[in-house]
Amino acid sequence: MTTTKLSGKARADALADLAGWAEASGRDAIHKSFKFADFNQAWGFMTRVALAAEKADHHPEWSNVYNRVEILLSTHDAGGVTEKDIALAKFIDQAAT
Amino acid sequence: MTTTKLSGKARADALADLAGWAEASGRDAIHKSFKFADFNQAWGFMTRVALAAEKADHHPEWSNVYNRVEILLSTHDAGGVTEKDIALAKFIDQAAT
Repeated sequence: MTTTKLSGKARADALADLAGWAEASGRDAIHKSFKFADFNQAWGFMTRVALAAEKADHHPEWSNVYNRVEILLSTHDAGGVTEKDIALAKFIDQAAT
Repeated sequence: MTTTKLSGKARADALADLAGWAEASGRDAIHKSFKFADFNQAWGFMTRVALAAEKADHHPEWSNVYNRVEILLSTHDAGGVTEKDIALAKFIDQAAT
């Protein structure tokens, strides 16, 4: 998986496959908001993401307030969104269902 | 444990016992920043806090970026900082060591 920053058509195509993910404002990053039934559900989701992130050595920037989770993805080394972020976003969407 | 909003001397006394916790700006809340060796350590800490928070049915507002965790505590029902927040802050400090 390359860590080249995605731009232009490659980036547009990648984002088109990710429902609910949008460009972050003021950052070369993508973000999405999640809402669950309660903290138990939100934390279960976050735990699944944490394990996958640690395994891939690629971690989200995220916040949690009770049943809500906000996630921002960017590849610091590349200074923007890479395939690593797209792959993690896809896993995150699976983990949320 | 009462959920009366702490103010005046009671609040000052409670905060004086909590090293590193400060009044949040623009919110009736207290916050603290934590830095760990890596994501594994940060997540372990967060997991201990999550279990305690769920048990007490009193949850933090928090964010995580790799080895850093920012925590804000406030009691929504009371519109400010209560003994519930002080108790959770004390647990959090223990969990961080």
